[in-house]
Amino acid sequence: MKVLMAEVNFSEGTNLDIVKQVRDALMSVEGVTMVDENSDKDHNRSVFTYIGTPEAVLEGTKKLSEKAIELIDMTKHTGSHPRMGAIDVVPFIPVRDVTSEEAVEIAKEYATFLGGLGVPVYYYEDASENPDRKTLPKIRKGQYEALEEKMQDEFWRPDAGPFEFNPKSGATVTGARFPLIAFNVNLNTTDIEVGKAIVKTVRAAAGGFTNVRAIALDIPEKNQVQVSMNLTNYEKTPIHRVLETIKFELTRFNVTIADTELVGPLPVYALKDLLQFYIKVNDDFSVDQIFG
Amino acid sequence: MKVLMAEVNFSEGTNLDIVKQVRDALMSVEGVTMVDENSDKDHNRSVFTYIGTPEAVLEGTKKLSEKAIELIDMTKHTGSHPRMGAIDVVPFIPVRDVTSEEAVEIAKEYATFLGGLGVPVYYYEDASENPDRKTLPKIRKGQYEALEEKMQDEFWRPDAGPFEFNPKSGATVTGARFPLIAFNVNLNTTDIEVGKAIVKTVRAAAGGFTNVRAIALDIPEKNQVQVSMNLTNYEKTPIHRVLETIKFELTRFNVTIADTELVGPLPVYALKDLLQFYIKVNDDFSVDQIFG
Repeated sequence: MKVLMAEVNFSEGTNLDIVKQVRDALMSVEGVTMVDENSDKDHNRSVFTYIGTPEAVLEGTKKLSEKAIELIDMTKHTGSHPRMGAIDVVPFIPVRDVTSEEAVEIAKEYATFLGGLGVPVYYYEDASENPDRKTLPKIRKGQYEALEEKMQDEFWRPDAGPFEFNPKSGATVTGARFPLIAFNVNLNTTDIEVGKAIVKTVRAAAGGFTNVRAIALDIPEKNQVQVSMNLTNYEKTPIHRVLETIKFELTRFNVTIADTELVGPLPVYALKDLLQFYIKVNDDFSVDQIFG
Repeated sequence: MKVLMAEVNFSEGTNLDIVKQVRDALMSVEGVTMVDENSDKDHNRSVFTYIGTPEAVLEGTKKLSEKAIELIDMTKHTGSHPRMGAIDVVPFIPVRDVTSEEAVEIAKEYATFLGGLGVPVYYYEDASENPDRKTLPKIRKGQYEALEEKMQDEFWRPDAGPFEFNPKSGATVTGARFPLIAFNVNLNTTDIEVGKAIVKTVRAAAGGFTNVRAIALDIPEKNQVQVSMNLTNYEKTPIHRVLETIKFELTRFNVTIADTELVGPLPVYALKDLLQFYIKVNDDFSVDQIFG
């Protein structure tokens, strides 16, 4: 059976009545299963992650978006997380028997719908049709506050919807990407320089692994430094390889790993890779054997 | 939600029409999900593993058993696997929010039902009420062929059903136990003595870990020796501890691990332990995060 995932990031994390109405709109669609939901007051932002058939996920995302566009007013929005619109970012993520191309198609159908509601929409990642507008940070640069001025420039003509600033909804970024794994490694050190050195060994931008984004963070309450990572393609750049690299690089600093964190939804195929590496389980093993 | 598992071992693996009728009887009950099914011609035996609410699993097991008792005639059964009855062994296995005591209760309800069909039933493992009749090999000793004579002895008065040999159905063993993990470690050696030495270090009976049953097998077609194990309680004796012990014991023989096998249903909580040990994932990680 085809399974698609969507991860909707929308700009309301304080008024939980609005969050609930948006959630209800989504869950009114049969065949949608929520796998993770998170509302953050400081960010004033919520993230819903859900799966289903491509049809159900598209329909649910439309219903959700209609309600969010109705209830959220970006002219009044503040929050510490970067954002550009009421519906800020919507990646569609292949999970099972869905190709990247199919996910891109769904993203474009969604964009056409959202454009019809008067929202300018930009494609990113695998849906991007412009190499200069491929990553979220590039498209979202300057955030909501810069949008009116950006849209004076032909470069910012949207991929769907009106080429016109919409003060209430802002703009939305959608597209398709591989499931992302949030993986943090906590180090037994208070020396942020060790964390920064480790970041340099693994992050793509510094010569490390393609598909790894990483930053070093202080965690004073635990006397630790965290290497906080996003693995953007666990098939090509699996968890075990990043972790083992961090382990051997740490030896030069005489620093050990305190523990690690897997945050948010974890694809079962990433687990399979871990079993293959750490316990050498052979190819006969299928994730369908897992139960409970 | 409460989830119980049952693993029914019944004495038909050749006539697939009978296997199908038995399967259909089970699946006619709503809320039963098959997680594994296996029919072996040499063994002339099938194993169905399924989960559901305790009520659904009990009801499905009754329906299945009624059909198997009707269709299987033990007076005509041959096969290479030890067996004592048409419905040979039925463990009930707690999976989620079910206690061992609840599983024992279900086993006893099931035994009463089966006894009502004229089948002598013995309790084993956590349901056993007699320390000399706790393990399956002890109860099944001599197999079906010895049953008529055994039942002349007061010691073999069944826990449920008639105290009388039933030639057509034989006798059934039921009870409750922890989920069992079939874990095999394949060694890069053709020397069975190395396998036997490793078996001695891990199996309970030889001074190894409680909850480990193990034998060494030749695998001539792969030029390997296999340490074939059942882990009978992965909470108390987890996979990683057994595997790491095998690794360090192997160093004295200069033998390495070729690969490992996880056979049949694998409880997701056993996976969590592997993540905790091998990648040091911390307590915030929940198996509910796994999707796909």
